[in-house]
Amino acid sequence: MADRLRSWWGWGWEDQALDERQTAKLAASLQHRFGIELAVRPPPDLSSTVLAEPRVRVPDAFAGWCHTDHHERASHTFGKAYRDVVRASYGQLGHSPDVVARPTTESQIEAVLHWASDAHVAVIPYGGGSSVVGGVEHRGEGDVRGVVTLDLTALDRVLEVDRTSRAARIQAGALGPVLEDQLRPHDLTLRHFPQSFEFSTLGGWLATRAGGHYASVYTHIDDMVESMRVVTPTGISESRRLPGSGAGPSHDRLFLGSEGSLGVITEAWMRLQDRPRFKRSSGVRFANYHDGVAAVRALSQSGLFPTNCRLLDATEAATSAGVTDGSTLLVVGFESAHHPVDEAMSLALTCCADHGGMIPDEPSDPGESNGNAGEAQRADQGRAGAVGAWRNAFLRAPYTRDALVRMSVIVETFETACTWDRFDETHHAITTAAMEAVERVAGVGWVTCRFTHIYPDGPAPYFSVFAPGRPGSEVAMWDEIKVAVSEAIGNVGATITHHHAVGRDHAPWYREQRTEALGRVLTAAKAAVDPSGIMNPGVIVDAPPT
Amino acid sequence: MADRLRSWWGWGWEDQALDERQTAKLAASLQHRFGIELAVRPPPDLSSTVLAEPRVRVPDAFAGWCHTDHHERASHTFGKAYRDVVRASYGQLGHSPDVVARPTTESQIEAVLHWASDAHVAVIPYGGGSSVVGGVEHRGEGDVRGVVTLDLTALDRVLEVDRTSRAARIQAGALGPVLEDQLRPHDLTLRHFPQSFEFSTLGGWLATRAGGHYASVYTHIDDMVESMRVVTPTGISESRRLPGSGAGPSHDRLFLGSEGSLGVITEAWMRLQDRPRFKRSSGVRFANYHDGVAAVRALSQSGLFPTNCRLLDATEAATSAGVTDGSTLLVVGFESAHHPVDEAMSLALTCCADHGGMIPDEPSDPGESNGNAGEAQRADQGRAGAVGAWRNAFLRAPYTRDALVRMSVIVETFETACTWDRFDETHHAITTAAMEAVERVAGVGWVTCRFTHIYPDGPAPYFSVFAPGRPGSEVAMWDEIKVAVSEAIGNVGATITHHHAVGRDHAPWYREQRTEALGRVLTAAKAAVDPSGIMNPGVIVDAPPT
Repeated sequence: MADRLRSWWGWGWEDQALDERQTAKLAASLQHRFGIELAVRPPPDLSSTVLAEPRVRVPDAFAGWCHTDHHERASHTFGKAYRDVVRASYGQLGHSPDVVARPTTESQIEAVLHWASDAHVAVIPYGGGSSVVGGVEHRGEGDVRGVVTLDLTALDRVLEVDRTSRAARIQAGALGPVLEDQLRPHDLTLRHFPQSFEFSTLGGWLATRAGGHYASVYTHIDDMVESMRVVTPTGISESRRLPGSGAGPSHDRLFLGSEGSLGVITEAWMRLQDRPRFKRSSGVRFANYHDGVAAVRALSQSGLFPTNCRLLDATEAATSAGVTDGSTLLVVGFESAHHPVDEAMSLALTCCADHGGMIPDEPSDPGESNGNAGEAQRADQGRAGAVGAWRNAFLRAPYTRDALVRMSVIVETFETACTWDRFDETHHAITTAAMEAVERVAGVGWVTCRFTHIYPDGPAPYFSVFAPGRPGSEVAMWDEIKVAVSEAIGNVGATITHHHAVGRDHAPWYREQRTEALGRVLTAAKAAVDPSGIMNPGVIVDAPPT
Repeated sequence: MADRLRSWWGWGWEDQALDERQTAKLAASLQHRFGIELAVRPPPDLSSTVLAEPRVRVPDAFAGWCHTDHHERASHTFGKAYRDVVRASYGQLGHSPDVVARPTTESQIEAVLHWASDAHVAVIPYGGGSSVVGGVEHRGEGDVRGVVTLDLTALDRVLEVDRTSRAARIQAGALGPVLEDQLRPHDLTLRHFPQSFEFSTLGGWLATRAGGHYASVYTHIDDMVESMRVVTPTGISESRRLPGSGAGPSHDRLFLGSEGSLGVITEAWMRLQDRPRFKRSSGVRFANYHDGVAAVRALSQSGLFPTNCRLLDATEAATSAGVTDGSTLLVVGFESAHHPVDEAMSLALTCCADHGGMIPDEPSDPGESNGNAGEAQRADQGRAGAVGAWRNAFLRAPYTRDALVRMSVIVETFETACTWDRFDETHHAITTAAMEAVERVAGVGWVTCRFTHIYPDGPAPYFSVFAPGRPGSEVAMWDEIKVAVSEAIGNVGATITHHHAVGRDHAPWYREQRTEALGRVLTAAKAAVDPSGIMNPGVIVDAPPT
């Protein structure tokens, strides 16, 4: 592991990127689909990038853990949005941080915040750097003289495990596999597997209200928090460890979703689960998309709480799961550490059949995954059928996107949530807006939809867009599609984000969604804990009126 | 129903109070247990109470729906804490509101807040008036010239029902039975049944983060909210209806638990459920309390999500459920609208047996209750066995308490939540503190414990105290016990309240529990939405430093 290199410009491990043969094959396939020739650019060369001179200098006492070298600054410039990877792929690094701090203790974080408050330097908390919404990229906001990016990944320990309550105190800089590796000897798991799992941290999940891989009940990170510890510029705020409370507005819910604008999450006590022993998974096909939606709605309201309930529309089923007969595919699964899930699966399949679902002969046992996306991925590669094919595509998707960027293909994923009564309208409005924008900017392309999460009162649909881009214009083209889709989401009253967060890219639509009163409250809250306005300026909280 | 009268001083309907024969029987039984003679005072006489002259006059335009008559002001003086009922039983009405407003439209609420902001008059939102923490009783806090209590019960309509998403838009002043009656024709239920169900409102539940009757999953009102509409002194704030969202800190979680300190909740879109069709209930006995606790912990972590999971210690089982063999009693139940729950019950009973539980021969079908506590109560009166006996005692408890007040018996219930690893210590500390205080102030008495809610990481234990009081000294004696218990809760790091709220009675321990940073944030938030500081001053939010 120690020898593996993270890509400075794209996703994940350098050695996991698509190789030239795979890239050429992908290009050929897309050329065929788009009817347009695609030129593949080489990956960018770090040595040819240029950064501005650092504008600020940290105190000498910080020297051992603060860095200004080219690689650190370049690789911390952007998150991993499409527009980030495109810009990096062209070697265009705009507002790089002046300093990358890698604290190894909480008191170093306090020291940075004190110094930065006095020196008027912006501080951007940075976990795995997987933001797809411009959450970790300073764009000149705030009255600041420079920017320090605070990389928290050295604070990655599981500090305490409470087996009795099934909970652990975990440092916020722990990447997904790093924390799961420490929980495994205790036979416990956080069981929070966002697609970014390998390259995102507990603190990032908490700050952005991440959604995990699972479809229902305990999947939003919000519901797994017992207590949180946050270093603000005016002091440390740590809530009590409690399984539930009714004592005033929730401390933790104030910081959940604050995206680094109020302080730095340094630790949390997290609710854990026993590792699942019983699993069943099935792929149910529907001839008709609406039948699939109706089946999922019925499942969501059944009280069965499926672990997975991903409805892939026909295009996505074809692209990602090899289902070529035009069917809609529902991947439905159950897991338990305590009891067999055969009866739950049987009830779910009956529910699907009642809505026209074509039930496979035998639900499969999806086998044991140990909670490490990389290992799960390798295990899955041997798995046959539509369910296995879909999972492989899902886990490889961010690497595939880097290859697509090299051939100027425009790829965007956007997600929302709405109540069931508005789903048809929401789906139609978003799909139409996206397709119109794609045709306007690119001439051809396609839009797919799947459900990532379900609630009794509505789904969280997730859309993917693919279109050929013009080299050099990708970001402008992407922005046009993004604006069209975001406007459509706002117009139907859905949420601008269910789990991708707000950052800087979603800010205009977040401001419309957030009530005016909440906007004023957040501005006042920030003034109370961050009077110098140094914490991730431009994100979530508006600056006070001047 | 229209002819039934609410008690002006005690709980609920006047005609449901214990009659003189029942009261005498109760007194005789307690005299035997305490070994002390108890004198029963007559109920108080409203006509002999004295109120101060109103200090403020509302604008003439409010005349039709604002009241200053003796009955309205007297009956809105207190909530329903023990200390409230005692004081009322002696005819001691302290800070009565100057005016009781009963708005019938939201714009009347806006008008009250505008006028009150200008006139420096405190506004106390009031639903069913069932607060047990001094939440609706002004005690002179804030820089105000008078007090208006805003009774919201005229705003009690279900305005829209969305059958597809299973949700409804409900006015905040609807009492439990009033809203359930309107949902019943749609075959839907909010299924939120706190003990106060008949005499508490949706708005009160939301403002105080109420806990319902059910033990797990969807029981805290927090989790049933799709969106909330709040009238603040500086404008209306209404969130989008969403099944889930990751867009910034939650709007609704800011107002949940704000207890009227930031504004008046006027409406909410609430998540509903289908009415349960399948039910199983069992009473499992444990020879040993610790075995019962271990069984409940295992159940809480099993993923079975029991609907009921109330563990009654031996004293409570004897007092409330007629279990006289010294056993601990677990009332465990499952319900579903979708599928039979026999397998879940069977798995739960196996889990109990694994921990030494004595399993009854046959789990009972608890029958259909239509969600109206009054009707459920009548239906239950015919139900045999320990489970039925316990439910009857539970629903009659507030009426019983009024009779106990008349014989100067000190009755207090207090509740908390803690993680499983700390339960033994918490239980011991609270029980010890309560018993020591009881012996100090009253010489004799007893303390019981049951679980009201369970989470995978811990229970919500609920304690009851009974002791003989000295007429005229009940409040002082109660306060001494309350302080001792609240200190013990704080010392072990549990929560000062799981679902009774903070109000004025819990304020000192809430301030200790709340972080210093959250305190500053809430003060700043209040200044942003309620710059005149008129909303329920003294509750939740500290006044800004002067």
